[in-house]
Amino acid sequence: MTTTKSTIVYTLTDEAPSLATCSLLPIVRTFTRAAGIDVKISDISLAGRILAAFPEKLTDEQRVIDGLAELGELTQDPHANIVKLPNISASVPQLRACIAELQSQGYDIPDFPEDARTDELKEIKERYSRILGSAVNPVLRQGNSDRRAPAAVKAFARKHPHSMGPWSKASRTHADYMRGGDFFSSEQSVTMLKAQDVRIEFVSGDGQVEVKKTLGLEEGEVLDSMFMSSKALRNFFEESLEDAKNTGVMWSLHVKATMMKVSHPIVFGHAVSVFYKDLFDKHGALFEELGVNPNNGLSSVFDKIKSLPDSKQEEILHDLHACYEQRPELAMVDSVKGITNLHIPSDVIVDASMPAMIRNSGQMWGRDGKQKDTKAVMPESTYARIYQEMINFCKTNGAFDPTTMGSVPNVGLMAMKAEEYGSHDKTFEMAEDGTMRVVDADGKVLMQHEVEKGDIWRACQTKDAAIRDWVKLAVTRARNSDTPAVFWLDEERAHDNELRKKVEAYLPEHDLDGLDIRVMSYNEAIRFSMERMIRGKDTISVTGNVLRDYLTDLFPIMELGTSAKMLSIVPMLAGGGMYETGAGGSAPKHVQQLMEENHLRWDSLGEFLALAVSLEELGIKEDNPRAKVLAKCLDKATEKLLDTGKSPSRKTGELDNRGSHFYLGLYWAQEVAAQTEDADLAAEFAPLARALADNEQQILAELAAVQGKPASQIKGYYHADRADVKKVMRPSATLNGLLATANQ
Amino acid sequence: MTTTKSTIVYTLTDEAPSLATCSLLPIVRTFTRAAGIDVKISDISLAGRILAAFPEKLTDEQRVIDGLAELGELTQDPHANIVKLPNISASVPQLRACIAELQSQGYDIPDFPEDARTDELKEIKERYSRILGSAVNPVLRQGNSDRRAPAAVKAFARKHPHSMGPWSKASRTHADYMRGGDFFSSEQSVTMLKAQDVRIEFVSGDGQVEVKKTLGLEEGEVLDSMFMSSKALRNFFEESLEDAKNTGVMWSLHVKATMMKVSHPIVFGHAVSVFYKDLFDKHGALFEELGVNPNNGLSSVFDKIKSLPDSKQEEILHDLHACYEQRPELAMVDSVKGITNLHIPSDVIVDASMPAMIRNSGQMWGRDGKQKDTKAVMPESTYARIYQEMINFCKTNGAFDPTTMGSVPNVGLMAMKAEEYGSHDKTFEMAEDGTMRVVDADGKVLMQHEVEKGDIWRACQTKDAAIRDWVKLAVTRARNSDTPAVFWLDEERAHDNELRKKVEAYLPEHDLDGLDIRVMSYNEAIRFSMERMIRGKDTISVTGNVLRDYLTDLFPIMELGTSAKMLSIVPMLAGGGMYETGAGGSAPKHVQQLMEENHLRWDSLGEFLALAVSLEELGIKEDNPRAKVLAKCLDKATEKLLDTGKSPSRKTGELDNRGSHFYLGLYWAQEVAAQTEDADLAAEFAPLARALADNEQQILAELAAVQGKPASQIKGYYHADRADVKKVMRPSATLNGLLATANQ
Repeated sequence: MTTTKSTIVYTLTDEAPSLATCSLLPIVRTFTRAAGIDVKISDISLAGRILAAFPEKLTDEQRVIDGLAELGELTQDPHANIVKLPNISASVPQLRACIAELQSQGYDIPDFPEDARTDELKEIKERYSRILGSAVNPVLRQGNSDRRAPAAVKAFARKHPHSMGPWSKASRTHADYMRGGDFFSSEQSVTMLKAQDVRIEFVSGDGQVEVKKTLGLEEGEVLDSMFMSSKALRNFFEESLEDAKNTGVMWSLHVKATMMKVSHPIVFGHAVSVFYKDLFDKHGALFEELGVNPNNGLSSVFDKIKSLPDSKQEEILHDLHACYEQRPELAMVDSVKGITNLHIPSDVIVDASMPAMIRNSGQMWGRDGKQKDTKAVMPESTYARIYQEMINFCKTNGAFDPTTMGSVPNVGLMAMKAEEYGSHDKTFEMAEDGTMRVVDADGKVLMQHEVEKGDIWRACQTKDAAIRDWVKLAVTRARNSDTPAVFWLDEERAHDNELRKKVEAYLPEHDLDGLDIRVMSYNEAIRFSMERMIRGKDTISVTGNVLRDYLTDLFPIMELGTSAKMLSIVPMLAGGGMYETGAGGSAPKHVQQLMEENHLRWDSLGEFLALAVSLEELGIKEDNPRAKVLAKCLDKATEKLLDTGKSPSRKTGELDNRGSHFYLGLYWAQEVAAQTEDADLAAEFAPLARALADNEQQILAELAAVQGKPASQIKGYYHADRADVKKVMRPSATLNGLLATANQ
Repeated sequence: MTTTKSTIVYTLTDEAPSLATCSLLPIVRTFTRAAGIDVKISDISLAGRILAAFPEKLTDEQRVIDGLAELGELTQDPHANIVKLPNISASVPQLRACIAELQSQGYDIPDFPEDARTDELKEIKERYSRILGSAVNPVLRQGNSDRRAPAAVKAFARKHPHSMGPWSKASRTHADYMRGGDFFSSEQSVTMLKAQDVRIEFVSGDGQVEVKKTLGLEEGEVLDSMFMSSKALRNFFEESLEDAKNTGVMWSLHVKATMMKVSHPIVFGHAVSVFYKDLFDKHGALFEELGVNPNNGLSSVFDKIKSLPDSKQEEILHDLHACYEQRPELAMVDSVKGITNLHIPSDVIVDASMPAMIRNSGQMWGRDGKQKDTKAVMPESTYARIYQEMINFCKTNGAFDPTTMGSVPNVGLMAMKAEEYGSHDKTFEMAEDGTMRVVDADGKVLMQHEVEKGDIWRACQTKDAAIRDWVKLAVTRARNSDTPAVFWLDEERAHDNELRKKVEAYLPEHDLDGLDIRVMSYNEAIRFSMERMIRGKDTISVTGNVLRDYLTDLFPIMELGTSAKMLSIVPMLAGGGMYETGAGGSAPKHVQQLMEENHLRWDSLGEFLALAVSLEELGIKEDNPRAKVLAKCLDKATEKLLDTGKSPSRKTGELDNRGSHFYLGLYWAQEVAAQTEDADLAAEFAPLARALADNEQQILAELAAVQGKPASQIKGYYHADRADVKKVMRPSATLNGLLATANQ
């Protein structure tokens, strides 16, 4: 992809965000062209990525550029300036649906071969597997993470606080976690003195050595290894269940089976088979035969027993229900449908479910639809302790107050697949007792653990360059925001102690004069941050990758009610920048509403915020003063939009995404016309500002007129024709006309 | 009192300790005379102090030396070495009983004139009032406080742990305290730039100025002022009661009405009149007429209504019981007798009751005799927060484990009546709305508060010399014990911020090389100490006077099950030292058992420990190597005594205080005979060691023989004849003979 110094690359993704882009971009370009900035589209949609993977199957006309590959290259360019919208992380069913849609549109692409037996099919499967799941972020996130609540959003939350359930001092809710036998207590860590290949080996009882994996490590890279004992885990579950039963609190499991996709489904599976121990004991042999897999949750039992005769099914269901007599009440994901916490592993995702519980008076929902105090079970203790700390804090000080509380922005170590999130390919469930060890190029054993069958062993890499950049980013953020920064590094964690040494070595490379930068254990750090927070003070959390993920949900949900309104910036190692718009997925339900009622309730707030930072950074890096002015005015326009309540309504017939875009354009133009830094620019935009204001009612009427009927022009879900989408998303001739003729 | 460099002054006090002294001292002297040390008795008993106050009423033979006055002088002597045993802090009934006993013994002392109308009676009352209450400590405690668990006691507790109730993670127990309107939130503090008199003034609404008190302040002295709003207090009680009712926890009030003798009875009284609000509302006028004072607890209602006709009494009692319907369950002091927490103000003393509750799984006793989760109400938030911190800690980590936990010794600011404990004469309950202010010699207003009728205002002094010595003592203890020391000084407290400045100024006057000395807020400090504690590490708490009092109960009760086994040293400002033996009162019940069954279960462990430190200090200060050897051997003997279970039994017929003393003598002699530092000394004690061992059975038999019958030789309770006491307390002719002829 060729970009100039004055190019912003705007990703075209999927579902609601891609629909919204069609309406927003013409407005954006009206402003950016005044600063000589080109806004280019890069198609990284699921359909686009599929088409790019099979060029030889397509006609010349059908063939597309590989947007993701291009963007991946661009991340290495110091001028890169990418606004990244949410995209589909495709599951197999989604992939299949998209393939079918493309085939129906005349694209001769192959089916997804789940059971690939021939070399050809294997090659096809290999191409598709690069598209599946979280395929975009690893390519684009070529830097560490800078996430914060934008000033406008924070100000809005203070004025219009979200609901927060009160906390009782007498609450019984607590976090429960292992006190030994988990990853935390077994972690070992080494820093490589030289670049070399190391081997992960399993040594069996009879001395047989099996090389599980070879890793190429860089000089200064940190390598950890750790394991969770399945015996300790199962004992913990048993004791935890008994304790909940005895003390009368609900039992709720919180893991991260989606993201920690190798280790956590196993942990989840143990919870299921311990909770329903009598069931699994009695029907173990049959379940094995049927292929029941507790790692897929209780739903696996329901699925697999369907093949059995009714009487046998009834017996099993009877035995299943009998388990509930012996066990504490289970927290519900959906109490109406009777779906518990143990139904499927993806239902309760710790980083979202724990803040939701804490916001909800520390309670979850019981079978009877009532909210109740809960034992929140997070077996691995490394990060679970911070939730107990917050629970204790809320019991002591009451619920957080969004109208007065400070903020905890995050600087997260993420670059070069840092830390645990890159460890899926280095995670193993032990098939037998033995020794897991890491051996260096000279044959020296760097780390080793005695393991038993069923234990989960994993290794984890963190590159020195990523850490060095992370330290730099922390200092930069502390300086630019004049805010204390705390490195969350636990004294009792081997990995963190290796990082402490590096942090202590790299910090003095920067000008620290006047900065307040500290290093604290997790409990200390969260307590320190919360004590400041309730006094209205901000504290930057500088954390590893998992805590980045957890904290950028935890604090925003307390502060803003959602993490979707956070600014998420990836300052690339190569010098460029990526500005991610809010999390919250690509909202298939919103598409459904548009298709049926032509109302799009997707909120582009994340795009507004990301774009402002993108413009600001471009202004600074490329010395483009107009970009800076536009950035400032866009932020003011966004704040006004929030203040005047011009965000999309959920209800058809009211202001939707398109109307919200109109107001953004109006306010932005008014701000540019009103500013005095660049009089020429003000003069250029004065007519547009006036014209948009004069035509407000007309435009709103045109936008409203289309609502209530199906948006039948749009023919595809994953790969709609852009011209069709344009017709739907730009229904106001008046607005389109004003934009087309503005400051030409 | 004349003492030489080699004198230890041993106080003769009251009740059980004074009985024990009679048995122990002959043994002690057997050892000390070998080191050229004289052990002198100083009579500071209640009877002794009364007799010393009326010399003109006594015959020459009856006249006694004023032991307390002498000791008071001695505290100014750098050679002072005082072993101080617990004495009676006389209440008026105790004083009266003692006077009567003395009169019956032929001492012509006057009665206590409660209602003193003539000048003569006023003068008598004035003399007695100097004897009443806590009259000894203020005279003798001419230094700061050094309290710690002796190594032998800590080792014993680890081997033979006291019981600790388990903590549930789901416990509902919590501390409840005001979030505003209390002393903490209104505290102001100033440091005097020069010595001067300041005035505490009340300015009424119409501008009338009343001087409440004039204080002579030293240069560098810290003066605080603060008030508690009675409205805020009563609102807090009301909300707290409603919350306990709604959440179903018991309600329990924890104050310190004995020690905080002016302010806390008022706080207690508000609790009573809010809890029984309907009762006090309905019968307010009558109660006023009858002189019912809620500050004296519900017992005041029962007392005062006795004069009413039965039917009226019944009506009142009915209305009283009706209050319970509206209120949460009250924690019981004695559930058998139906005595609640609100019965009398001295029943629940926060520094003892809170650790007892925490040791007891965080529960107190309900009406039904069952233990239950509790809302522990401590209105003033300054120190209440540390209990909530410990409660949260126990919920998170479980009960403390006495077999592994570290220790939290204390260095307490106490000298020259430092801090709150000296503020009774500067505490005022407001009679009307107005302004309380502190005005300096130049008429400048140093501090002021707008107050309302019923508010409690107080000032508090801390002298610079005391603070300077406290800092020095902290450094000394950190150095001598090689233990981190934490100054507990709260950033959000005005008083503590003045102290922080002084600590920061005085610390650099010492050699801090290699020491770990920190300053932390209370919550941080207790958390830091507890985190270390559960990891087996010790942390010195360096605190103000109230926290000294609280923490030297809180931590010892967790570590040792009691605070009575702590070493309590007062290194005098003048250079001498006082070694206090364990707290726990003077045990009138023990005297009763002795009188009736001739068994004394008083444990002299505190005396053993104090004496060892006394000897050690004397050895160091006076360069007496034998004293050091004796000290070391005494500590070993004490440890052996604990290990072999030779402490007094509670049961008549088993080993009692006297038998325990025999074993101490035996083990001490054996240790001295076995040590190699001083061969001559070893040789001197070898015969005694052998003789005591050889005669063990004979001596035990002689000691046992007297038990089971009344100790009728002893005629007085407060002022028994020492010769009679000696007969009872030294019944073994064999032991007496061996001691009399030992190493002459």
